[in-house]
Amino acid sequence: MISELKPGERLDDLERNGLMLIQHPGRFCYGVDAVLLSWFAKASEGERVLDFCTGTGVVPILMTAKTAASHFTGLEIQEEVAKMASRSVMLNHLGDKVSIICGDLKNTKTLFGKGVFNVVTVNPPYMAGGSGLVGADYSKAVSRHEILCSLEDVIRESANVLVAGGRMYMVHRPYRLGDIICLMKQYKMSPRRLCMVHPKASQEANLVLIEGIRGGNTQIRVEAPLVLFDEDGQESKQIKMIHGRL
Amino acid sequence: MISELKPGERLDDLERNGLMLIQHPGRFCYGVDAVLLSWFAKASEGERVLDFCTGTGVVPILMTAKTAASHFTGLEIQEEVAKMASRSVMLNHLGDKVSIICGDLKNTKTLFGKGVFNVVTVNPPYMAGGSGLVGADYSKAVSRHEILCSLEDVIRESANVLVAGGRMYMVHRPYRLGDIICLMKQYKMSPRRLCMVHPKASQEANLVLIEGIRGGNTQIRVEAPLVLFDEDGQESKQIKMIHGRL
Repeated sequence: MISELKPGERLDDLERNGLMLIQHPGRFCYGVDAVLLSWFAKASEGERVLDFCTGTGVVPILMTAKTAASHFTGLEIQEEVAKMASRSVMLNHLGDKVSIICGDLKNTKTLFGKGVFNVVTVNPPYMAGGSGLVGADYSKAVSRHEILCSLEDVIRESANVLVAGGRMYMVHRPYRLGDIICLMKQYKMSPRRLCMVHPKASQEANLVLIEGIRGGNTQIRVEAPLVLFDEDGQESKQIKMIHGRL
Repeated sequence: MISELKPGERLDDLERNGLMLIQHPGRFCYGVDAVLLSWFAKASEGERVLDFCTGTGVVPILMTAKTAASHFTGLEIQEEVAKMASRSVMLNHLGDKVSIICGDLKNTKTLFGKGVFNVVTVNPPYMAGGSGLVGADYSKAVSRHEILCSLEDVIRESANVLVAGGRMYMVHRPYRLGDIICLMKQYKMSPRRLCMVHPKASQEANLVLIEGIRGGNTQIRVEAPLVLFDEDGQESKQIKMIHGRL
C-alpha cells in the first residue's frame, strides 16, 4: 500500500470500514465538512452520484461505505490532486465503484451530457471570488476560493447533470445562504432540507448542509441543529455517531 | 380597567411590567411567535417602530417594555381588531408611546410616506394565499392566511417605509424561508440574522426569526438555535428567560 504514496504524502485512516485516504499536508486536506456532507447526502441502490470539487476523493470514498449507490464519479480540476484521489480509489480497491475524472465542472455538458446523475455532492470553495486572501499555495487557494469555479457555476452545472427529481447536497458557510437559495431557485433547484451546524449549541452556525431537488417546488425543512461539541468542549454524541465512533 | 372589555373579551397578563392585553377567544390570539419576535427585534432610543399585522397590538405593547424605542405604530387592517388593540394601549397607559392605525399595509406610501421608520416588526399570516383551509371565522382566517396581504406585500412595504439602514424583523415558518430570502433580495432588503426555533433540540424548526436590513449587502449570520422545550418536555432555560420568568 505504502508504494502508492509519493514524497510528502501521508496515509490517513477514514475511520470507516478500514478506508484510507492519501493526503498531502501542503495541499488542501479534508475536514469535518466533508464528513458531514457524506453523512447528510442520501443515495439509494442503483443511483449514480457525481461529486464536484472532489479533491482527495474523500466524499465519494466515504459514501461507498455509507450508501448503496451503484457508482460514484469524482470531478477534480487540478491534475495532481485528481491523480492522488485516483490512487486512493485504487488503494481501497474501489476501482469498480468510483471513477475520478480530471476536468472543469463548467464543462459538464461536454464531459457528461445532460440529466445523467441522480445525485450531486459538493464541498465547494467557500470564499467568494476575490474576497479574502488568496494564499501563496495556488493548489490550496483553488480549494478555498472561487478562483476556478463560482457558487453559480456549481449550482448551474448541478442542475444540468441531474435527472428530474435528482438531488444536490452541498456543504457551505451560512453567510452564503442567501446566494445559495436564490441561485438554486434561479436554476430550478428547489431547496428542500437545511441543517445548521453549530460548534456548540450556544454558538452561531459555522456550516450549513443543504439539499436541493431538480425541478418541482418543494418546501424547505430545517432539520434539528447539528452540534459538534458539548458546552464542556467534548465531542457531542451526534458527531461521534457521524464519525462512527458510537 | 374591566370597563374596557366588551362581551366575550378577556384580559390576559403579558407577564412583563404588569402589561395586560385584551383578547377575544373567538379571534386570533397571540402565541409564542409574537413573544419571540418582541425578543428578537432590536430598537434603540429615539427609534420609530412600525408593526405590520399588529392584531391585538401584542408586539408593540411588549416592545415598550423591552426596548428604548421612542414610538411604536401598530397597523391593523381589521377595524374591530384595531379598536381592541387601541383599548389595550389605553388600558396600559401607553397612549403617548403606541398608536394603533386601522389601514391596509399595501398603502404605506399613502399612510406614512417613504423612509419614515427605523424598524419594522411583523408576524404575518403564515399560510400562502389559497393554500390550507380557510376557516369559517373570517377574522381568524385573515390572521393566518395570506388573504389580505401576501409575503411579497409585507416585504415590499417594509422596504418602502424603512430608512436606509433600517431593520425589518419577521417571524415566519421555515418552509417559507426560500421565498422570504429571495423576496428580501428583490426589494433590496439584505437578510442579516436568522434564528431557527425548534420545539426540542432533536426536532425540526417550526419557526424562523429573520432580520433584514434596508439596502447594503450584508452577510447572513445564523444564530444559536432557540429551543423551546428540554427533551423531558419542560420549558427550556432560554424560553423562561425570554418570558421573563428567570
